Amino acid sequence: MTAEILSVGTELLLGNIINTNAAFLSQELAGLGVSVYHQATVGDNHKRLFFALKTAFETHHADMVVISGGLGPTQDDITKTVAAEYFGRELVLHEASMQRIRERFTLHVLPPDVEKNAIIPEGAFVLPNNNGCAPGVVIEAGGKILMLLPGPPHEMQPMFVDYAVPFLQEKSGEVFVSQTLKIIGIGESSVEKMLMDLIDAQTNPTIAPYAKLGDVHVRLTASAKTAQQAKALIAPVYAEIEKRLGENIYSSDDKTLPEVVIGLLKQHNHTLAVAESSTGGLVMSELVSVAGCSSVLLQGLCTYANDAKIKRLGVDADIIQTHGAVSEQTAAAMAKGAAETSGTSIGLATTGIAGPDGGTADKPVGLVYFGLYINGKTYVEKRNIIGNRNEVRIRAANIAMDMLRRKLNA
Amino acid sequence: MTAEILSVGTELLLGNIINTNAAFLSQELAGLGVSVYHQATVGDNHKRLFFALKTAFETHHADMVVISGGLGPTQDDITKTVAAEYFGRELVLHEASMQRIRERFTLHVLPPDVEKNAIIPEGAFVLPNNNGCAPGVVIEAGGKILMLLPGPPHEMQPMFVDYAVPFLQEKSGEVFVSQTLKIIGIGESSVEKMLMDLIDAQTNPTIAPYAKLGDVHVRLTASAKTAQQAKALIAPVYAEIEKRLGENIYSSDDKTLPEVVIGLLKQHNHTLAVAESSTGGLVMSELVSVAGCSSVLLQGLCTYANDAKIKRLGVDADIIQTHGAVSEQTAAAMAKGAAETSGTSIGLATTGIAGPDGGTADKPVGLVYFGLYINGKTYVEKRNIIGNRNEVRIRAANIAMDMLRRKLNA
Repeated sequence: MTAEILSVGTELLLGNIINTNAAFLSQELAGLGVSVYHQATVGDNHKRLFFALKTAFETHHADMVVISGGLGPTQDDITKTVAAEYFGRELVLHEASMQRIRERFTLHVLPPDVEKNAIIPEGAFVLPNNNGCAPGVVIEAGGKILMLLPGPPHEMQPMFVDYAVPFLQEKSGEVFVSQTLKIIGIGESSVEKMLMDLIDAQTNPTIAPYAKLGDVHVRLTASAKTAQQAKALIAPVYAEIEKRLGENIYSSDDKTLPEVVIGLLKQHNHTLAVAESSTGGLVMSELVSVAGCSSVLLQGLCTYANDAKIKRLGVDADIIQTHGAVSEQTAAAMAKGAAETSGTSIGLATTGIAGPDGGTADKPVGLVYFGLYINGKTYVEKRNIIGNRNEVRIRAANIAMDMLRRKLNA
Repeated sequence: MTAEILSVGTELLLGNIINTNAAFLSQELAGLGVSVYHQATVGDNHKRLFFALKTAFETHHADMVVISGGLGPTQDDITKTVAAEYFGRELVLHEASMQRIRERFTLHVLPPDVEKNAIIPEGAFVLPNNNGCAPGVVIEAGGKILMLLPGPPHEMQPMFVDYAVPFLQEKSGEVFVSQTLKIIGIGESSVEKMLMDLIDAQTNPTIAPYAKLGDVHVRLTASAKTAQQAKALIAPVYAEIEKRLGENIYSSDDKTLPEVVIGLLKQHNHTLAVAESSTGGLVMSELVSVAGCSSVLLQGLCTYANDAKIKRLGVDADIIQTHGAVSEQTAAAMAKGAAETSGTSIGLATTGIAGPDGGTADKPVGLVYFGLYINGKTYVEKRNIIGNRNEVRIRAANIAMDMLRRKLNA
């Protein structure tokens, strides 16, 4: 099957937002064995969208067109109207979608025009939206498939994974199974080097490394007649990669690093307090993103000021005076102090220079110390992290969580 | 002038990389008064690239096509061949570019096929590459302009700014100026309704609302002979929108909400401590993203556990016992306690139910109380927030910062 991806939105043509949807959809479709030969972007313009849709089906001969964007209730949102016109369908109210919207707003007044979200082309198959008001729809006619998805990535991505993927798997005779290994502690080019012979020899499963900010993902995708057969093709390749990358692999079942860490804390009956300086709440915020974290994650302290490090964490003023707030000694004292003053079994601490100011020759921007207090012992790591303020903070938060993960796994 | 952006690269179609070039070029071109109505992406495929180029010029009637990618020396790099074929030109060695490449490799052996970088369509205007081997080129013929740029952003972007912009400024007579208003506290459809007559009557400037997670942006774009004239066209429309939306507008100069809040704290000589329960570090993390925040942002406390609320913030155990951890009274006590135990002039607190579990009929998932202690007084707000765990947390963090912003502006 071939597909074309059409992104709709004047903000894309003005360069106000970067089109991450096209990359996400291309990757997902590739994983399903669907070939994408064209991506196109048009604005919120009826005539041009209609023509782009016609071109995709009739000139590029795509079997499927996936459109993201333009499903909302405002005047700009023309995608459903254009799709209905192209296929000669009426637009009708989809009562189940309207019911979902009403439930979303149980405690609120319905916003103006919200019911327009639930208007769909007649006879379309609905992809529910668990993160917004506008449902996705699939129209099938004359051997062609048109899929309409919402523009906001946090609505579109889960909708695609939860509802579009099963729909497409049923269409294709083959089953595609993917497994993603998530790797932290080594960079993309090192991962690629370590797996080069496997990547060069790949056929089924395919092996694709992706660099993320703070970690690397390696995706294995196999196709076969059944899921069981596809999984059997992945297993030996997975085992070989695991042998080479070892404990740098933190997840092979789509868990996030915070989920892995919270899981390990529960498994080992530990409780955690986090003391953050340069990461400023980011470690805590990442860990709190995991539902049910509250049984093991008792406190987080952003002790940005020295005074806070002393009063909240009991860090000895002399340590800060002698070694500085960004030092091995302060990181260690923060970790121990976090645990002791919070009554937890583990304390995790960061202190560093996120920039852009505050760096010196001795202590440059990007220098971060990590402290971990566990089972009565204190460990410290030092890193020089590359990037701007927010990259330094994101990478540092990942390194802190990874330090804890490795110690809990040891 | 109208332009179409063509991105070339199979890695884009596989979703292995995100297309940041299209957004960069669109933004740059908009700033030069060039209208982009189409962006397209094709793989490293001669036939499809040729057809896409033909479509851009002959079907979409673009005055200019800007292609990025495919300029290198490998077999995959077909852009110059396709361009030469389209315009019926020979490919010739550009001696000055070859000289630049030799200078780049003074201390190194020339890589294989490196001279292919210096082969260009005959008669093309060269855009030098200061960060790589492949020069950009511009071909002008029959009133059409074709610009070829390298794919890697760190080569393409400086080349565009340093050499393509001056070239295009000479071509165009007009200047475009944009201003974005950022709005919080009212949703996209309400914003649109309040501005409907202005949006309907828009010509120059244009008015475009965009929904974000937690806020709404409205972009005004005007074109004129000079930047000053364009700004003068925006001013009265801006004034009218400001009159209607009032203090819901938190920024008109591209500042983020955390930047606005940190700026106001500095301006009013306040210091802040944040106590977070359901947002779990997110308010603090957002505020810490602002460089230079440390002079006003002294402490953040994630008091997830009741015990932490009592010991760290001095919240009366009876309050939690009587009213619950998620209550007006606890939010107020957390805000006051945060300020008093941290020695700051302001305390800001959140306590709520982020979900997915923990909701009851009385206190459903999404219920969040916000406490603000300032100038010796305590204020509380209650909201029922829509969305999943992370949407609730992100929206709640924005509401908390906005509550503080409005009070500081009052």
